[in-house]
Amino acid sequence: MPRARVACSAGELADATGAQLSGDPETVISGAAALESAGPGDVTFFADKRYRRQLEATAAAAVILPEAARAACPGAALVTDNPYAAWALVLERLFPEPAVAPGIHHSAVVGAEAEIDPEARIDPQAVIGARSRVEAGAWIEAGTVVGDDCRVGAGARLGPNATLYDGTELGARVRVHAAAVLGSRGFGLAPEGRGYREIPQVGRVVVEDDVEIGAGTTVDRAALEETRIGRGTKIDNLVQIGHNCRIGAHCVLSGQAGISGSTDIGEHCTLAGQAGVAGHLRIPADTTLTAKAGVISEIREAGIYSGFPHQPHTEWRRDVAALRHLRELRRRLEALERTESENGQGDP
Amino acid sequence: MPRARVACSAGELADATGAQLSGDPETVISGAAALESAGPGDVTFFADKRYRRQLEATAAAAVILPEAARAACPGAALVTDNPYAAWALVLERLFPEPAVAPGIHHSAVVGAEAEIDPEARIDPQAVIGARSRVEAGAWIEAGTVVGDDCRVGAGARLGPNATLYDGTELGARVRVHAAAVLGSRGFGLAPEGRGYREIPQVGRVVVEDDVEIGAGTTVDRAALEETRIGRGTKIDNLVQIGHNCRIGAHCVLSGQAGISGSTDIGEHCTLAGQAGVAGHLRIPADTTLTAKAGVISEIREAGIYSGFPHQPHTEWRRDVAALRHLRELRRRLEALERTESENGQGDP
Amino acid sequence: MPRARVACSAGELADATGAQLSGDPETVISGAAALESAGPGDVTFFADKRYRRQLEATAAAAVILPEAARAACPGAALVTDNPYAAWALVLERLFPEPAVAPGIHHSAVVGAEAEIDPEARIDPQAVIGARSRVEAGAWIEAGTVVGDDCRVGAGARLGPNATLYDGTELGARVRVHAAAVLGSRGFGLAPEGRGYREIPQVGRVVVEDDVEIGAGTTVDRAALEETRIGRGTKIDNLVQIGHNCRIGAHCVLSGQAGISGSTDIGEHCTLAGQAGVAGHLRIPADTTLTAKAGVISEIREAGIYSGFPHQPHTEWRRDVAALRHLRELRRRLEALERTESENGQGDP
Repeated sequence: MPRARVACSAGELADATGAQLSGDPETVISGAAALESAGPGDVTFFADKRYRRQLEATAAAAVILPEAARAACPGAALVTDNPYAAWALVLERLFPEPAVAPGIHHSAVVGAEAEIDPEARIDPQAVIGARSRVEAGAWIEAGTVVGDDCRVGAGARLGPNATLYDGTELGARVRVHAAAVLGSRGFGLAPEGRGYREIPQVGRVVVEDDVEIGAGTTVDRAALEETRIGRGTKIDNLVQIGHNCRIGAHCVLSGQAGISGSTDIGEHCTLAGQAGVAGHLRIPADTTLTAKAGVISEIREAGIYSGFPHQPHTEWRRDVAALRHLRELRRRLEALERTESENGQGDP
Repeated sequence: MPRARVACSAGELADATGAQLSGDPETVISGAAALESAGPGDVTFFADKRYRRQLEATAAAAVILPEAARAACPGAALVTDNPYAAWALVLERLFPEPAVAPGIHHSAVVGAEAEIDPEARIDPQAVIGARSRVEAGAWIEAGTVVGDDCRVGAGARLGPNATLYDGTELGARVRVHAAAVLGSRGFGLAPEGRGYREIPQVGRVVVEDDVEIGAGTTVDRAALEETRIGRGTKIDNLVQIGHNCRIGAHCVLSGQAGISGSTDIGEHCTLAGQAGVAGHLRIPADTTLTAKAGVISEIREAGIYSGFPHQPHTEWRRDVAALRHLRELRRRLEALERTESENGQGDP
Repeated sequence: MPRARVACSAGELADATGAQLSGDPETVISGAAALESAGPGDVTFFADKRYRRQLEATAAAAVILPEAARAACPGAALVTDNPYAAWALVLERLFPEPAVAPGIHHSAVVGAEAEIDPEARIDPQAVIGARSRVEAGAWIEAGTVVGDDCRVGAGARLGPNATLYDGTELGARVRVHAAAVLGSRGFGLAPEGRGYREIPQVGRVVVEDDVEIGAGTTVDRAALEETRIGRGTKIDNLVQIGHNCRIGAHCVLSGQAGISGSTDIGEHCTLAGQAGVAGHLRIPADTTLTAKAGVISEIREAGIYSGFPHQPHTEWRRDVAALRHLRELRRRLEALERTESENGQGDP
């Protein structure tokens, strides 16, 4: 198992989460499991009414749940308005992230004038470029390459095998997962004869505090200024973000979503899996694109959008439903045509 | 050329594949080529009736083919019920995979208490974490990072530049291609204020025997228990598999397919390129999703599904056809409306 | 900032681009910026009529523009037929790419009989396989792995953390960005019982001169012969190209596009983001696939294609528009049916 478990009491979990405890605060919690597989000693989690029967039958020592479900819980209950956040806090308590053991592995290569904080950790085969700064508590994992003139903020964690191109700046507590690439050349091309000339991309990528960048995700550097990922935004695996994009704070971009160059995504937007947004567009704050949605024109009002080209979600649902009755519609039209034709022929 | 060729006779190929030979068993086979480009000395392969003319004209020394095509073959024929499998066996014979030369390159870094079998091979700049086990015949290629507490099964091959996060377990003969990532953080988020809190992901990834994981593919570790890829499943490049997924045995997942978290895919399913499946769903065994299909609700019956949202393939084809006659339908409706309106106006 | 700026005069920029200068050739240009943010000392760029107001108000020292816009420009103008190419040349002048400082870093590993030109550069932790040739001016960045028997052409640049499998050949000035993978195993499988047998992939990848391969992009090696990327083709991030594909010269493949095995793409084609092409197809030269388009059958005529399955773009637009009026169509049909039914009932 990747992380060691640290047992604690139900009372301690109530304190850690701010939940209200129904049951014995001395109950020992030594593990965590899903509702259907939790055994004695486990804490578990209930948020979806469809699983009420599993809640009633659970053998778990304690269940995190909303007030409305308290009565159905056979054991101790940790009652809270936000079971998801309480669940995160409980797991942090039970599986604490190990402290970063500082130091630079002897196989790592650190460039001239790089500043590595004594509380930072650099793993085997990593490379830190010239003049880059790695702040306290940051952890560069094995095989990761940080270019020249980068900044890796305090408590950030990168890699393994991730890449920061020259000039990339990461805020505090940023997570960049394996094989992700930040600051690659933007895809700027000028037609020239029958071919193309690459337009130099001399900008950079700035990632604000508390951002997560998924495994294999790529974020291109700006042509001139900055591609910027806003504070607290969470990006899943294999997402592509083009040059000059500005992603607002607290967005969620799911796996394989793609955003073309120079597009602005407002704060608190969600892109579901495989969604795409064309270049030079603006998505207003608090907008959701559902799975596989494709946006190729401006969105002016926040809302939920689906389909390709995108439509408001409710319209898309109606159109999908209508399409699935299209063959029936055709038959009814043909019936009318026959009647009409018979009526016509029947005319004196 | 990546691999050396080893010439053999038509008779030896018949023995290796179990095919029935029509022709001289002493015919020397020194290469392999596609039907249209095969010359004397080459073995080739015929399975698609559309290429019958190329078969009749081939200069190949021998052709693998089904019984029905034997008469059309001008040279030696290797007759078999399964030309594809015979073709694989013939190529294995002609281009044998070189034996793994064991040893640990001096530039590799091996962690404390790791067990590297003396018959395993660790290439330059690779990193093996603490307590990880690399079994006999396994080959860790250059720049690949294996975390702590991993298991790399006998005869497995990883990399280059691949990543296994802590606790990942690979069965025997697993292939993980370059830049693939196994065990990255699952995308579990709890809303908190206007932002999100990362839910700790303390599970792992288990990959059963004979699985192939394509280049750049990412498989997230489970929140609590296991993300599991079943025996013999073959995964192409740039595929994303979310946390807690269970992929059954002998599935085929093509390039850029994506599966969201906590979804179960039954045995022997096929996902074509760029297909996607939403989270918390079940796909029954023997189901096929065609290219770009998107599944956002439960599939209850095995079959072939297409489109977004998914439909049974034959219905999808009919709806696509109907859509392409929609404008004609509109014109016919307008014609009826005009007739109706004229009839109405004509009323006394 | 990734690159140093080198100031120059408006006259020098006119010389470098072949543009005609309106204004003082001694005007000092010390930076470059977008039209709306350019200040005194900056050169900028105007090509899209929608930004005419910003042009009229610009504080830029000089603007690259077409003849028709010259009169609207308040400062110096660099007049040219091809503002995009002139912009590329201006940026090359202002932000010159630093010369490659040759040498092999002591942490790099170079295999037996590899030939590294004295004018080539090999960065930390890179690996060069046996018998591979790295030509003059080529630059292998940190953590990149070049297999055995590869060729890296003059002036090519690879990585960081990129991978070339054995036998890959790159022409002159090829750019392979971080974490890209060339020459991975093609996804060739033979059904065998309920599972699959991997068909050996003994071909390779050939990349012609001046090609760009984006970050995280994967190109599989051929089953037998070559997967080939034609001269001058530009490929964005996270693109998947299957085994045996032949991509013609001067194509543009945008982010997350995918091409299945054995497909030929003619010269000067464009695939927009998330487009896909099935296997064993031919796309004629000068064809464009728009975003998310999916091609599952032969395209016989060059043109612009959209949607899934693909249609000529204008037909697709009409069908999309028709679909969005489908519910209205249904209401009108129902109205006709009511009239008909009333007429029928009204019959004596």
